[in-house]
Amino acid sequence: MNKIDLWSRYKEFLYNDAVTGFMLDISRIGFDPSLFTSSKPMFQQALAEMADLENGAIANKDENRMVGHYWLRNPEIAPPALRASITDTLASIETLTAKIHKGDILSEKGSKFDKLLLVGIGGSALGPQFVTQALGSTNDKLTIFFMDNTDPDGMHKVLSEMGSLDTAICVVISKSGGTKETRNGQLVAKEAWKRAGLQFNRAFIAVTMEGSELDKTASSEGWLARIPMLDWIGGRTSELSAVGLLPAALQGYDIRGMLAGAKHMDELTRSSDIRTNPAGLLALMWHQAGKGQGLKDMVVLPYKDRLELFSRYLQQLVMESLGKQLDRNGKKVNQGIAVYGNKGSTDQHAYVQQLRDGVNNFFAVFIEVLKDDSIGEKQWVSELKVEPNVTCADYLQGFFLGTRSALFENDRESITISVKEVSAETIGMLIALFERAVSFYASFVNVNAYHQPGVEAGKKAAARVLELQHAARAALESANAPLTAEEVATKIGSSDECETVYKVLLRLAHNGRAALTGQITPNEARFSSK
Amino acid sequence: MNKIDLWSRYKEFLYNDAVTGFMLDISRIGFDPSLFTSSKPMFQQALAEMADLENGAIANKDENRMVGHYWLRNPEIAPPALRASITDTLASIETLTAKIHKGDILSEKGSKFDKLLLVGIGGSALGPQFVTQALGSTNDKLTIFFMDNTDPDGMHKVLSEMGSLDTAICVVISKSGGTKETRNGQLVAKEAWKRAGLQFNRAFIAVTMEGSELDKTASSEGWLARIPMLDWIGGRTSELSAVGLLPAALQGYDIRGMLAGAKHMDELTRSSDIRTNPAGLLALMWHQAGKGQGLKDMVVLPYKDRLELFSRYLQQLVMESLGKQLDRNGKKVNQGIAVYGNKGSTDQHAYVQQLRDGVNNFFAVFIEVLKDDSIGEKQWVSELKVEPNVTCADYLQGFFLGTRSALFENDRESITISVKEVSAETIGMLIALFERAVSFYASFVNVNAYHQPGVEAGKKAAARVLELQHAARAALESANAPLTAEEVATKIGSSDECETVYKVLLRLAHNGRAALTGQITPNEARFSSK
Repeated sequence: MNKIDLWSRYKEFLYNDAVTGFMLDISRIGFDPSLFTSSKPMFQQALAEMADLENGAIANKDENRMVGHYWLRNPEIAPPALRASITDTLASIETLTAKIHKGDILSEKGSKFDKLLLVGIGGSALGPQFVTQALGSTNDKLTIFFMDNTDPDGMHKVLSEMGSLDTAICVVISKSGGTKETRNGQLVAKEAWKRAGLQFNRAFIAVTMEGSELDKTASSEGWLARIPMLDWIGGRTSELSAVGLLPAALQGYDIRGMLAGAKHMDELTRSSDIRTNPAGLLALMWHQAGKGQGLKDMVVLPYKDRLELFSRYLQQLVMESLGKQLDRNGKKVNQGIAVYGNKGSTDQHAYVQQLRDGVNNFFAVFIEVLKDDSIGEKQWVSELKVEPNVTCADYLQGFFLGTRSALFENDRESITISVKEVSAETIGMLIALFERAVSFYASFVNVNAYHQPGVEAGKKAAARVLELQHAARAALESANAPLTAEEVATKIGSSDECETVYKVLLRLAHNGRAALTGQITPNEARFSSK
Repeated sequence: MNKIDLWSRYKEFLYNDAVTGFMLDISRIGFDPSLFTSSKPMFQQALAEMADLENGAIANKDENRMVGHYWLRNPEIAPPALRASITDTLASIETLTAKIHKGDILSEKGSKFDKLLLVGIGGSALGPQFVTQALGSTNDKLTIFFMDNTDPDGMHKVLSEMGSLDTAICVVISKSGGTKETRNGQLVAKEAWKRAGLQFNRAFIAVTMEGSELDKTASSEGWLARIPMLDWIGGRTSELSAVGLLPAALQGYDIRGMLAGAKHMDELTRSSDIRTNPAGLLALMWHQAGKGQGLKDMVVLPYKDRLELFSRYLQQLVMESLGKQLDRNGKKVNQGIAVYGNKGSTDQHAYVQQLRDGVNNFFAVFIEVLKDDSIGEKQWVSELKVEPNVTCADYLQGFFLGTRSALFENDRESITISVKEVSAETIGMLIALFERAVSFYASFVNVNAYHQPGVEAGKKAAARVLELQHAARAALESANAPLTAEEVATKIGSSDECETVYKVLLRLAHNGRAALTGQITPNEARFSSK
């Protein structure tokens, strides 16, 4: 397509929200305009499902749950019985935050809190990490740190970076209250507080479902606060629930702005005409690019440092929602869309070579930010001229538009999202846009976007590994001589689990919890207790 | 395959290096053992090419360059005329670093340096970022910060995080010395030093090719030091050149250990029997999994926080090397392997749902670290019991093995790399392993791994955007009334560039550098100078 036709196509299909300046450009996806007609039944069905969901249907049938993240930013549309739980939670977040910021709640040693350790994983960390990167500055009211894994070395590193815990709050986030990585992080954090001579319960806050294991612990230990997580919020759509709002509020970000941005996008994406429904357009383009089978990866390329973690956030939202073996009729479909990306123009010096020239197995989603400065502050850096009349951000836009052209010239498809600036409102808008596009796309390909059955298998297998570790250690203790992994496995009645037993013993031996004699190879290594 | 057969297969194909405990498990890729025979000619060819390259052949024919990154860790095998340049560079890095650490070189205000700003992008930043994450601690001799983009807002944020520049060194890295993002970062850094009332040249160090634009600037401005970058080192294989070694040495990491680890892996991967050549095995498994056409993405899953950035580092190394339109005979092949990943078990709460159940378009590369603690330090966190006899790292291994099993059960292929610990040596080994696997794989699929022709198109298109910006601004200045983007484009004789002109003007208008009247949409927006 020549550039003049492309300009016509650009103008014809550009979605523009006059209120916020948000734009969505789909002209560089190779669809035929008849797609809007042919996809009408599919889109009407998706809209009807969205309406049902917003009206409180049991959209997550497997878990017999409503799916209510769209209510968080507009409690008016929630089932009347649930409205108070939303507004009360928000009020308790704001009240608690105000007390902490004002110093009505002080640290044990009488100072204002100025650090925040967030213990959580997946949906309980990715949103806050993304938002911190997007909205954070050295002016944050509390400086945030994350413990989002069960790697002791990583946890130790975080604690070292935090330094003194005297003025630190710890927020432990787990919906079910039973996530092991988070439970472990909580125990490590408590021990760190104790070692610092501090009463941890004066600094710990739980965000969890009422009555969960974590809730009971927090209650019996008298934690500083407990904020309820609601049954009908899934982890990957929880950034605008207490999970995301409590840390953001503590950091001093404008959580009402985030909610307002999301609410506005929700409204824009209720349009029944797909041409004026940005989430509908986005989902339809995903469907077009990947032929409704996820044949193309989605490469997310924001040209803005503050949006670097958006791709990681979207990895969870998109892949955990859409990556499903069975459709809603139980048919094997192996759906999903793989997502990756970091930021431009940095990535041009990493993997854009492959995007332009290599396997054509992706489409790009560019994110453009029109204002050079964020958070309203005018900065000297953005005004500095690196050449006559040229600023750093002129180059940034040059590289963005240049890469977009270079990909198009080589038949690589792309979508471009433009926002005015990086702000609480636009972050809320972006989150809502993708949440709703995921809901629509799931409907298009007939999968349940709200469960994650594949995650259970890994958890069960992990529990089995720990059982084998216990049994293997006991076997070593009762043995008279060093044993091979095969001998241990046989002794504990798990002769089909030799590989796991070997790997468990090998690691124990590397950490002084078993002795190893001979070579380290599977047949030669002999283990004994230590 | 049942677990007992899988155990046999595991034992049969496990590669093990007795010296370092490094292991490579390929049993969960679905190859037939006859592959080792059938691939022999291909592998012998790859070995021959590697030998040529190591002997100084012009392996990068497009740029008429030798490819010498394997010489860096073993100058003995470099062409005799080049050996001194390697050893001299290393010596100058160590001498300079020692002076800075000892205080023989002090900051302008007379204190020891304790901060390091690295200005570089792509191959000049990804390696140091990965190594910092892997080996860093609060005991680093200099705390590092990165400016790796031309986003002014991002640069401003980095400068804010650095605080006082009184004790900061700035290392500017650009092989060609002409990378615009880095040039811009350099100018911003200089201005920041000036604004702090400091003489920047007393704190700035250049790493660049002799005679480059950057080299000339550094020389004429009297920078603290200039370290040469050698012609035959490519950006994506430069971590063990001055690019990676200077920052690592300044941070206090064991750069001799990194080099020794890489040298050891180079030696292991010269074996002419692929069964005992880990890079050969790795490349062969990539070839097997993706049918030699990159049909499967590579998902890199290290179960260790310190290795979180390895996937991003590999994204560049693998995708920029292998993502090529033409093979070495000029045939259109569109090769490559897409790479993404973060860290386990965190990612299990993000996208492992899709990996297990969704589109089967990937293979996983697990990275296992046997020692729970890094950098030799025994830490209380790793010994804390979260349940009777269970530690945080027991869970980490449980989730790793559990996920590996859960993927295998659902016919998702994986490779597992095991290292004893995260240390300078193992980081060197991992870098070398993948560098050499990339070299072999490129030979298997007959592409040039050492050039990046697709990157030029984006750069040229970017330069064109800046030209259009200049012309468009001039057009607005000479206009009597507000103009539409189409009118401006026509006026500057670029009526086929309306879209670019519109996007450029729209951004200028959002930053007070043009005035906008009317709607912001392409047809309605009217621009004037301001």
